[in-house]
Amino acid sequence: MEIINNYIQKNKERFLEELFGLLRIPSISSVKNHKPDMYKAADYWKELLLKSGAGKAEIFETAGNPVTYGEKIIDPALPTVLVYSHMDVMPVDPIEKWITDPFEPEIRDGKIWARGADDDKGQGMMHAKAFELMVKTNTLPCNVKFMIEGEEEIGSPNLGKWCEEHTEMLKADVILVSDTSMIAANIPSITTGLRGLAYWQVEVTGPNRDLHSGLFGGTVANPINVLCSMIDKMVDERGKITIPGFYDDALEVSAEERELLGRAPFNVEEYKKAIDVEELAGEEGYTPTECTGIRPSFDVCGIWGGYTGEGAKTVLPSKAYAKISTRLVPNQDHEKIAELFKNHFESIAPKSVKVEVTPLHGGQGYVCPIDIPAYQAAEKAYTDVYGKRPVPVRSGGSIPIISTFEEILEIKSVLMGFGLESDAIHSPNENYPLEQFYNGIKTIPLFYKYFAEMNK
Amino acid sequence: MEIINNYIQKNKERFLEELFGLLRIPSISSVKNHKPDMYKAADYWKELLLKSGAGKAEIFETAGNPVTYGEKIIDPALPTVLVYSHMDVMPVDPIEKWITDPFEPEIRDGKIWARGADDDKGQGMMHAKAFELMVKTNTLPCNVKFMIEGEEEIGSPNLGKWCEEHTEMLKADVILVSDTSMIAANIPSITTGLRGLAYWQVEVTGPNRDLHSGLFGGTVANPINVLCSMIDKMVDERGKITIPGFYDDALEVSAEERELLGRAPFNVEEYKKAIDVEELAGEEGYTPTECTGIRPSFDVCGIWGGYTGEGAKTVLPSKAYAKISTRLVPNQDHEKIAELFKNHFESIAPKSVKVEVTPLHGGQGYVCPIDIPAYQAAEKAYTDVYGKRPVPVRSGGSIPIISTFEEILEIKSVLMGFGLESDAIHSPNENYPLEQFYNGIKTIPLFYKYFAEMNK
Repeated sequence: MEIINNYIQKNKERFLEELFGLLRIPSISSVKNHKPDMYKAADYWKELLLKSGAGKAEIFETAGNPVTYGEKIIDPALPTVLVYSHMDVMPVDPIEKWITDPFEPEIRDGKIWARGADDDKGQGMMHAKAFELMVKTNTLPCNVKFMIEGEEEIGSPNLGKWCEEHTEMLKADVILVSDTSMIAANIPSITTGLRGLAYWQVEVTGPNRDLHSGLFGGTVANPINVLCSMIDKMVDERGKITIPGFYDDALEVSAEERELLGRAPFNVEEYKKAIDVEELAGEEGYTPTECTGIRPSFDVCGIWGGYTGEGAKTVLPSKAYAKISTRLVPNQDHEKIAELFKNHFESIAPKSVKVEVTPLHGGQGYVCPIDIPAYQAAEKAYTDVYGKRPVPVRSGGSIPIISTFEEILEIKSVLMGFGLESDAIHSPNENYPLEQFYNGIKTIPLFYKYFAEMNK
Repeated sequence: MEIINNYIQKNKERFLEELFGLLRIPSISSVKNHKPDMYKAADYWKELLLKSGAGKAEIFETAGNPVTYGEKIIDPALPTVLVYSHMDVMPVDPIEKWITDPFEPEIRDGKIWARGADDDKGQGMMHAKAFELMVKTNTLPCNVKFMIEGEEEIGSPNLGKWCEEHTEMLKADVILVSDTSMIAANIPSITTGLRGLAYWQVEVTGPNRDLHSGLFGGTVANPINVLCSMIDKMVDERGKITIPGFYDDALEVSAEERELLGRAPFNVEEYKKAIDVEELAGEEGYTPTECTGIRPSFDVCGIWGGYTGEGAKTVLPSKAYAKISTRLVPNQDHEKIAELFKNHFESIAPKSVKVEVTPLHGGQGYVCPIDIPAYQAAEKAYTDVYGKRPVPVRSGGSIPIISTFEEILEIKSVLMGFGLESDAIHSPNENYPLEQFYNGIKTIPLFYKYFAEMNK
């Protein structure tokens, strides 16, 4: 631990500078004209791995954005850790809500402020610097491989195929991922479950052109009214999703495990206060934590149609659109759900409109058993740094690629997240506390140490 | 008639040029930065009236956009016609759907294409040129006053007050308005009823910031989901608006009058084909024409919230918005309806969100009796030009100021519209057939002639 602390102390400013360089690249994967930035980020990661101690590093093309791969093989007899992270970030709108430029990182109140500060450039950088620390202090006890992709925020559409093409190169004993959160800075936790995701865009077409709402209103179906009505029908009064067959494959969590998960501290009043809502919503019969952790959800992520400018324009619009997502629980297949939704949504459309559903992306859920060596090594590492045994939790978020890894590479992932709820990932003013950043760099080498010991 | 036809024949190109000059001014009243264009339009109208034969013309300031007033008083003993039109136009978005620039008029397929070509620059210009015709051919049988406002498309918020301040100046026997449509180019009709309007913007706020839809989805109410649900509740399965008290004051039309109105030709298949819909919607128990003509309607004119850009961004947004309008029938007071809606909409909001309703504008409905001299003079004028007696119809559109005129000036308005359904007013590619433009200029002097004779 002393070696770790000393090395961090001596190099902490440089670690930040290297992160800032990465944060300045606006690598938004969902916006096509940021394509060149994806290549900049891939190149930045390649150089980063090489100077951190990788024996080799390379940029691989895919049908989409590139993947940066690097490795240091010290002894084929030793266990191998495959680190996964992503170099891409979410869009920044509404841009006007950012206090400072999302792509010009700065330190305020002990936090790093920038798009990607946590998700996932900040957390990814911890692995690069922990790796450097082990190499430079001659304490690296495992072989290490890095796989840094550029399409996580759009559902990793090409990484599965790339993994299939490189199964030999990617062979490892565990995949290590820091792309999740802890319960609080003083309550360490490890995510053991992730929800899946299915995401669509829907387009409702009424008349073939925008009409005068006075001359036609009342006789011609308004596509916005219809879209609202169709969306409303998707979730019933009890918070149940109404798509026929939707829950058929959903893994029910046992009463025993629900009791265990319920032990994670959760203060409903503080939770409501933090987001400024008077009441929570959710599915009948489940606690707020269960609603996000072990139950599916249905959210309209965006909606638009008709006149949205200043003042009052009376119009009966031709079209209305929505971006709709469901979060899925383990065992729900996102492709099957996508099909069920499409069929159901189109079937409930009145004949007065035309409806088109386009799947945009999806991913499966994931569960990590808490009795495998890799999980237990992580548990010990957190305990050393935070002075408390971490709580296993089910997260509501999705990292679709994690279940793909299990399927294709047949390797379990351990989700060593160091984010906090207040980091505002995917929102304006994303941030990452310096303390979590440096604690991550401390914890990771300990994981390697314990994992190597357990595999002896 | 020969005098009329000859004069039009000689001057038809110049009439068009004068209209084109007006159409080139982008006088969009709902967008603040077009304010200077409102003054350009007011000035254009002033010059137009003076060169067409007005004895005087003047621009009046209001709290909003200016009003151009002009008059020619030939003999106080003769009847006086007050012409009302508006110089403002609707916004042009979606601009990408226009085949040619909305503010660079051109002639194609025998039609004038431009924003305002019909509504109401084209129809207003017919009155200016019919007036010129009568002055120049020494056939003007009445005193004439022109009142051209600049805020019709935003509900004429300042014209009522201006009328109150100028009741003496505006004294007249009838108000003549061309701001409506005919059934078809070969089926002349005169609008005898207009719907009123109440229009609001609603804002639904969920959490205080955009949230990660995975981490929070299922527990935190999504304002888009909630807005859709609230909108859906506003109209029931039978097409009835559910706002308590909404129909209390609505004027029911007698079975006898419904039978009469039902005689206007209406081909449901052609109607559906023209707008490319498979089925119509509407209130149970009423025909399509009745649904727009004599019954109220509820339309969402615009909706927006969350991520609306390219690709798939998963977000549980903080806010969702909609622009909502109801069309009202005579006797429904728009201010009372605005209050009823606001109270009801806010009352049905779940506690998981905050809802704010802002009234944007409104206006009362109007009915014109078909037994008054002004209506009968109009009927004869149309019969002369179109060879057929015009059908009285109830229009679904709103010209809120018409009922204000009746209230403040105590003068009935006759709605001599020459628009066609295919003119696409308020939509991209607004147009106005040349034939209707010139037929209007023919019909108007005949109205003056018959109206003067009836008042002898």
